[in-house]
Amino acid sequence: MAGSTWGTLFTMTTWGESHGEGLGVVVDGCPAGLDLCREDIQKYLDRRKPGQSRFATKRQEGDQVEILSGIFEGRTTGTPISMVVRNTDQRSHDYDAVKDLYRPGHADYTFDAKYGFRDYRGGGRSSGRETIGRVAAGAVAAKFLESLGIRVAAYTKSIGHIEIDPDRFDMEERFRNRLCMPDAQAALEAEAYLDELMARKDSAGGVVECVIDGLPAGIGEPVFEKLDARLAHALMSVGAVKGVEIGDGFGAAFRVGSVNNDGFLKAKDGSVAKRSNHAGGILGGISDGSQVVVRAAFKPTPSISQVQRTVDRQGQEVEAVIKGRHDPVIPPRAVVVVEAMAAFTAADVLLWSMTSRLDRILEFFGGNDHSDRLQGK
Amino acid sequence: MAGSTWGTLFTMTTWGESHGEGLGVVVDGCPAGLDLCREDIQKYLDRRKPGQSRFATKRQEGDQVEILSGIFEGRTTGTPISMVVRNTDQRSHDYDAVKDLYRPGHADYTFDAKYGFRDYRGGGRSSGRETIGRVAAGAVAAKFLESLGIRVAAYTKSIGHIEIDPDRFDMEERFRNRLCMPDAQAALEAEAYLDELMARKDSAGGVVECVIDGLPAGIGEPVFEKLDARLAHALMSVGAVKGVEIGDGFGAAFRVGSVNNDGFLKAKDGSVAKRSNHAGGILGGISDGSQVVVRAAFKPTPSISQVQRTVDRQGQEVEAVIKGRHDPVIPPRAVVVVEAMAAFTAADVLLWSMTSRLDRILEFFGGNDHSDRLQGK
Amino acid sequence: MAGSTWGTLFTMTTWGESHGEGLGVVVDGCPAGLDLCREDIQKYLDRRKPGQSRFATKRQEGDQVEILSGIFEGRTTGTPISMVVRNTDQRSHDYDAVKDLYRPGHADYTFDAKYGFRDYRGGGRSSGRETIGRVAAGAVAAKFLESLGIRVAAYTKSIGHIEIDPDRFDMEERFRNRLCMPDAQAALEAEAYLDELMARKDSAGGVVECVIDGLPAGIGEPVFEKLDARLAHALMSVGAVKGVEIGDGFGAAFRVGSVNNDGFLKAKDGSVAKRSNHAGGILGGISDGSQVVVRAAFKPTPSISQVQRTVDRQGQEVEAVIKGRHDPVIPPRAVVVVEAMAAFTAADVLLWSMTSRLDRILEFFGGNDHSDRLQGK
Amino acid sequence: MAGSTWGTLFTMTTWGESHGEGLGVVVDGCPAGLDLCREDIQKYLDRRKPGQSRFATKRQEGDQVEILSGIFEGRTTGTPISMVVRNTDQRSHDYDAVKDLYRPGHADYTFDAKYGFRDYRGGGRSSGRETIGRVAAGAVAAKFLESLGIRVAAYTKSIGHIEIDPDRFDMEERFRNRLCMPDAQAALEAEAYLDELMARKDSAGGVVECVIDGLPAGIGEPVFEKLDARLAHALMSVGAVKGVEIGDGFGAAFRVGSVNNDGFLKAKDGSVAKRSNHAGGILGGISDGSQVVVRAAFKPTPSISQVQRTVDRQGQEVEAVIKGRHDPVIPPRAVVVVEAMAAFTAADVLLWSMTSRLDRILEFFGGNDHSDRLQGK
Repeated sequence: MAGSTWGTLFTMTTWGESHGEGLGVVVDGCPAGLDLCREDIQKYLDRRKPGQSRFATKRQEGDQVEILSGIFEGRTTGTPISMVVRNTDQRSHDYDAVKDLYRPGHADYTFDAKYGFRDYRGGGRSSGRETIGRVAAGAVAAKFLESLGIRVAAYTKSIGHIEIDPDRFDMEERFRNRLCMPDAQAALEAEAYLDELMARKDSAGGVVECVIDGLPAGIGEPVFEKLDARLAHALMSVGAVKGVEIGDGFGAAFRVGSVNNDGFLKAKDGSVAKRSNHAGGILGGISDGSQVVVRAAFKPTPSISQVQRTVDRQGQEVEAVIKGRHDPVIPPRAVVVVEAMAAFTAADVLLWSMTSRLDRILEFFGGNDHSDRLQGK
Repeated sequence: MAGSTWGTLFTMTTWGESHGEGLGVVVDGCPAGLDLCREDIQKYLDRRKPGQSRFATKRQEGDQVEILSGIFEGRTTGTPISMVVRNTDQRSHDYDAVKDLYRPGHADYTFDAKYGFRDYRGGGRSSGRETIGRVAAGAVAAKFLESLGIRVAAYTKSIGHIEIDPDRFDMEERFRNRLCMPDAQAALEAEAYLDELMARKDSAGGVVECVIDGLPAGIGEPVFEKLDARLAHALMSVGAVKGVEIGDGFGAAFRVGSVNNDGFLKAKDGSVAKRSNHAGGILGGISDGSQVVVRAAFKPTPSISQVQRTVDRQGQEVEAVIKGRHDPVIPPRAVVVVEAMAAFTAADVLLWSMTSRLDRILEFFGGNDHSDRLQGK
Repeated sequence: MAGSTWGTLFTMTTWGESHGEGLGVVVDGCPAGLDLCREDIQKYLDRRKPGQSRFATKRQEGDQVEILSGIFEGRTTGTPISMVVRNTDQRSHDYDAVKDLYRPGHADYTFDAKYGFRDYRGGGRSSGRETIGRVAAGAVAAKFLESLGIRVAAYTKSIGHIEIDPDRFDMEERFRNRLCMPDAQAALEAEAYLDELMARKDSAGGVVECVIDGLPAGIGEPVFEKLDARLAHALMSVGAVKGVEIGDGFGAAFRVGSVNNDGFLKAKDGSVAKRSNHAGGILGGISDGSQVVVRAAFKPTPSISQVQRTVDRQGQEVEAVIKGRHDPVIPPRAVVVVEAMAAFTAADVLLWSMTSRLDRILEFFGGNDHSDRLQGK
Repeated sequence: MAGSTWGTLFTMTTWGESHGEGLGVVVDGCPAGLDLCREDIQKYLDRRKPGQSRFATKRQEGDQVEILSGIFEGRTTGTPISMVVRNTDQRSHDYDAVKDLYRPGHADYTFDAKYGFRDYRGGGRSSGRETIGRVAAGAVAAKFLESLGIRVAAYTKSIGHIEIDPDRFDMEERFRNRLCMPDAQAALEAEAYLDELMARKDSAGGVVECVIDGLPAGIGEPVFEKLDARLAHALMSVGAVKGVEIGDGFGAAFRVGSVNNDGFLKAKDGSVAKRSNHAGGILGGISDGSQVVVRAAFKPTPSISQVQRTVDRQGQEVEAVIKGRHDPVIPPRAVVVVEAMAAFTAADVLLWSMTSRLDRILEFFGGNDHSDRLQGK
């Protein structure tokens, strides 16, 4: 695999640059028979669309998706689903000033080191627009998971030091404020903080949290392909993410075992449940039936319009001011990206997990009696 | 890939259970011509060996490695290197008491959910002994990286709230104290803290940090196979790890862009360098030539000898006391595991990165003139 | 991997159905810096385009390719190259008659068995049009190989029992006749044979041969990823292929060792060469520097307009006549598909082979002295 | 993947050289709960063991397998199954004479070209003993398939021009004669032919055929991962194989469509069946429920004790006589290898195919009602 494909049985292959013809994704391995229409995808893309608030880039992109394959009579056929979003509002000349510059915090220098040259327009492949393919693919995965009663939801947990308060947590609120915070008051405080930063031509970091409800116990492989390891890979592959945690995450490193262990109990309906969920729903890399909780830390937007000292492609030191249209904070638009990556990864690992037990395989194939199968000669 | 293989071009496939015949690994894709002997592997295994201090399990295992293939006349041949460590000190009867129990913080319940039953002896495949194969493979990778001038080093950064002090940092000190801390004073404080916890039959969590020096710029793929994404996957796949960070990690989420951005400068020798390294040596998923810095958070050892409330396999609530031989803290023995996983992952990604530029490929193959190649007919 | 991606480091992911919006491919892992334009791709697609002779389907498709990403200023950037061909001449109503039918020799029944239903229009994903993505990707690979002096060429070796004569072999002739045979006389005979079959509403099978010149020795992995094993996989994955051979292939099974062995000799320039090439350029799965020779056997076109006995989706026996526009023989249009798959596979394996030797890796990275690399802190 | 691993969900990773410490395999992804013991493996290894007839190498190897992991209380646990066979009868000095020689038909030259040097003892990794790991893994797959009522059987179809007669076909006879032919008379003729060749210090080629009975319809992916493409890959990866066919294979290339098409019919039990099986049980890459039929062509054993002209490592022309212990024909001992590779590949593809339909996935997971799942907090 050459780096633009994610997944094992259920895969997405993304392509596209910020200022090329468009961006897209090929989703392969989606089970046949899933009801899926353009609107299922578009509503996810709309959540990451720019130009929606004063905290998001002013670039105006319709970001209308077209589905080119894999659907017949409203249902997935099991063959690849190709989706394309055309770029329409490219202002490439904005980038002429930076084409010979190594912008701090960006991948300009590393792309040059790796490839010898780069498409400098809007960050090219390393642009935030690269996530369009991820989100479209994640929308397919989310629809699939929903059919199994599994729901994935992400939201902004913190912006700078302003964090949501668990006592005010309201999942629906994340759709109401522009920062995607499930806490109206925290959102107000964060807006004020961002206004202040924008006045200073600065940017903020933040944390996105994502929960998966309804995932059955037993999903994930126990060694290298642990469910949490794959989620960490998936989220760390999103631009600007610098850290990933499961459950209590780094907090667990400061705690003692007697507090951190989640004892099991017998639920009212007789099933096995846990008294607490410090583990974030995963034990030994395998889901335990509790809510899966994962977080990603985003660094502050590197594009700031302050004067910065850096070097150009010739290695000469220069003072640079980054123009262009940029968000002062990444999480609000990254929430749907995290949700997409978590949903896609969970769906892939779930499919994989169907093959772990002989008894269930025998049941799936109707036992060992295939005498009714056709026998040509 | 069925979950026990890690890597793309340079792979390790591990196998083995805590109380089975042994544990081992097959390393495939190691370049031919690398000087490698048993001692190169054994010295890494000795660093994770139990029974070395009062903070490590009392289990006595020689953990002597045998190399079964892939080496000829002292050099790697390019074919798979199979390595085996026999189990010698299994006390399986220790585990009879827990075979029907779902121990809190362990993978007992999830293994049962996934596989229908499990090898309950010592955690079976989910035991810490599973890392033996990782460490042996990492030793091969480290030797390969050394030949390129790349050095990987991990150490305990914190145990509970006791953290190393950057002003006292001494890399060699990590080999002198039993907690693998590169700060003698922090190690003493942490020992006292652990003694206190052991008296209370409790355990501590901690953080392991790992640095990679000498990695050239340009290593890593820009989308799903970012160098940091693969490192996150690799480290999160280690048992008990609940969080992974690159560079400033979660700290970056609380910072502003003007502080977090690393400006580039012109080094004395004329090359491009950075003024700071908040990014931890990776930009856009690709190494930037600076030191790569990654951290893993370990939860407290789940095996504690306090009475814990949980359920048994029949779903009945019980009070349980976990016996057996366990470490009160995981990082000191996990340091070499983190180092191994980071080295292996870096080596794999490095090989992959050889194919990114046509000019270098042409140079590698001696241009487009193969007229001197044999031409049978 | 979900079945629509081919390759390890250099990959193609194809998508599309015969009567959907279009078909396409995402090529990932193409080295950066390769001159590539739309015309490089279009000329390959033109070779497989329908409607060019009386032996090819009458469907009129412009099959004009659009490149959506991965190229900047005329060169590949190292990021995914997305290519799309829109369907324009769909006559889906042609297929209403067969939607409930299991056509003999087609994948109708097996798609239903696998997916529960299918896009029956023109075979959907199992249509010959599925190869459009393969050919576009192969054109990229061929351009890459050419830059290294490696040339891949396929041609029709036989149609029915009419085979090209080695004494009349003229590689350029394959572009002159409609059957892509490098032997004008054999092509004439085959045309007459096909005219006769068409009069009888029947179809013919045939063999396509492909040669790779200029491939250096040492390419391929020695066990499961042998160069010939990957070529066999690649060619057998083309629709209607029922057999694949390397070198003398099945002929070798009837021969004795003293005849089949290719002795080595010292070439005039002092290099190692072979006295003969029964092996087809591959020994132990690794290229030996001779011409690589591979063949694929194609079954007769299953769509014939004779009355055939079969069953419908309800399992009832029916007599069926297949309408639609179909080729009476597959190889002439499959020649470019075979060439594309062989080129792509060789390019992928070649890249992979860069990592086999430590001495060459050290040379590639400039030895173990990275002291000139930037060192941020 | 570094070339020594085969499979996607169900994988084998083989290792070992002819004259190293031993050979072995790690099987990963085997479903949990399969009854499996050492004898299940040993009986397959005994079928490929040398020293059993005058047509097989005189090397005496017990080839006793040891299972090191993955089994608990007689059943597979779902974790990797590591199996080792120690080498015991190495006569490495036999090979001193050939260490500087490029033997015709062997991989000596290509290994040197790829790796720079090689373990020359007995062919090292390119020895026929490399198949030990494949056979051990195939035995696990065969046991798994049997539990589903799927049976895989291979046999020698021809040696030189002596072919089995369908009218005398007796599957059990393949275990009775030393050439593994299911036709006693053909075996006698072939023995006489081989005696004659041995007198002339020559060797023969041959064809192995393999059938899979009981495979349900719907197994295989429709594009690159066709069931036949994977089988072709698997068989072509076996040393000395130069061609692979499915069903009528190359014969289909000489036939017309009206003959080659297999019409469907309604079986007595009401199911869909085929009137004939030219396709070899696979249509569009997906099993059709008929018997799967695949064939592999083996070249003559390259090691012959005639004088042969070749070159040495210095490129000087020499006359060479190959000593050592070699079989005059490969198929009789390769039969079990072909069976193993076919079984393993079928098992892997079968597991993969469980994920193709939403309706069956919903059924597998018990619909979308997980309200009874544990919900920790």
